[in-house]
Amino acid sequence: MTLRLYDLAGAEPERRFSPYCWRTRLALAHKGLAVETIPWRFTEKAAIAASGQGLVPVLVDGDRWVSDSWTIANYLEDTYPERPSLFGGAAGRGLTRYYSTVADGLVAAIFPFVALDILDRIAAEDRDYFRTSREKRVGTTLEAFTAGRETKLPAFRSGLTPLRRTLTAQPFLAGDEPLYADYAVFGPLQWARCISPFELLEKDDPVRLWRDRLLDRFGGLARKSPAYDV
Amino acid sequence: MTLRLYDLAGAEPERRFSPYCWRTRLALAHKGLAVETIPWRFTEKAAIAASGQGLVPVLVDGDRWVSDSWTIANYLEDTYPERPSLFGGAAGRGLTRYYSTVADGLVAAIFPFVALDILDRIAAEDRDYFRTSREKRVGTTLEAFTAGRETKLPAFRSGLTPLRRTLTAQPFLAGDEPLYADYAVFGPLQWARCISPFELLEKDDPVRLWRDRLLDRFGGLARKSPAYDV
Repeated sequence: MTLRLYDLAGAEPERRFSPYCWRTRLALAHKGLAVETIPWRFTEKAAIAASGQGLVPVLVDGDRWVSDSWTIANYLEDTYPERPSLFGGAAGRGLTRYYSTVADGLVAAIFPFVALDILDRIAAEDRDYFRTSREKRVGTTLEAFTAGRETKLPAFRSGLTPLRRTLTAQPFLAGDEPLYADYAVFGPLQWARCISPFELLEKDDPVRLWRDRLLDRFGGLARKSPAYDV
Repeated sequence: MTLRLYDLAGAEPERRFSPYCWRTRLALAHKGLAVETIPWRFTEKAAIAASGQGLVPVLVDGDRWVSDSWTIANYLEDTYPERPSLFGGAAGRGLTRYYSTVADGLVAAIFPFVALDILDRIAAEDRDYFRTSREKRVGTTLEAFTAGRETKLPAFRSGLTPLRRTLTAQPFLAGDEPLYADYAVFGPLQWARCISPFELLEKDDPVRLWRDRLLDRFGGLARKSPAYDV
């Protein structure tokens, strides 16, 4: 039975941009598992109620509903152990969790650059929800939150130094070939380029070159999705 | 033949405080390899000239001289493959490199808190070298660099969020048991407590509790070394 994935979409149903859903998309591709992705909007809580919560990604595998990207990655590894490993073994699974939390931090670090662009590109019915929930979280209007974003770029790019050094020394975070750690950290960067024309990374940044290598994987799965050339 | 390790020492030869040497000390203990540590001061470049450079750790294994903590870790893994793995496999080795660069960043983040304390506790013959080289690096006097360090604590502690979240979810960075990734990141925290009475971490911080678990490993190897109770 084909797996199904509820996948956050913008105003255009084919614009998929969630950093967390992208992790899962690449994890499924890594496992070689076919998936039917279902465009989902922030306010469609009823569609995923069977998962017991209201956020995507939500994976449906037969009669099992699995939410939370880290939980889904572990579910896929344990349910499909005969397929290529996402973690590279037990130690690899332990070592990968930190990458997942680093990626969460990267979402927070990128949000001031893209918040208003998200608002502009999501479905009309999502806009009130998005503005209200995010302005409550950041404590100001999205306009004020995003203002002067160019001035924040140097600090953002400097914060990528450990990733940059690692990706100068080896092609992927996991070494010669990518694993889930790569997909987890890739998610926030793919999120940004799918929803915002703002150029976060310089063209010759090793972090960008690594991102581009991941765009090419799995037949260009992530590159073919609607995005900006940044 | 017993391995030898040139290990940075303070004014007291038993005060060993290099964040990089501590990584190697724990890596050797993890491998179950006996080592004779040789107290070394910043200015004793001649003693390690055979390594082709002037920094510790330097490991001497028979007629081989190996420098750079990451190179040493890989050397130990490849030379003693029958002993417990430092990386947990090929993917684990790839995944561990990022921890090493994160740890380097942690050294830089901690330095403003401990720079002057280091100057106070190193050997007399090292003080000019240390002050001159570090003031050139940071672009100001060590006194000015360290001034008002309390005000920088909240940002420092906040920067540990991804580590904290990971170590709330599992006992070690590598999962249920520590690997080299843990030792790499532990190094900077051990450096601080060996050389400075300044309290970087709150007592109930999961990062501190993890550090304390590592202090207890290998018969309390890192806990028994001269240090401050912070």
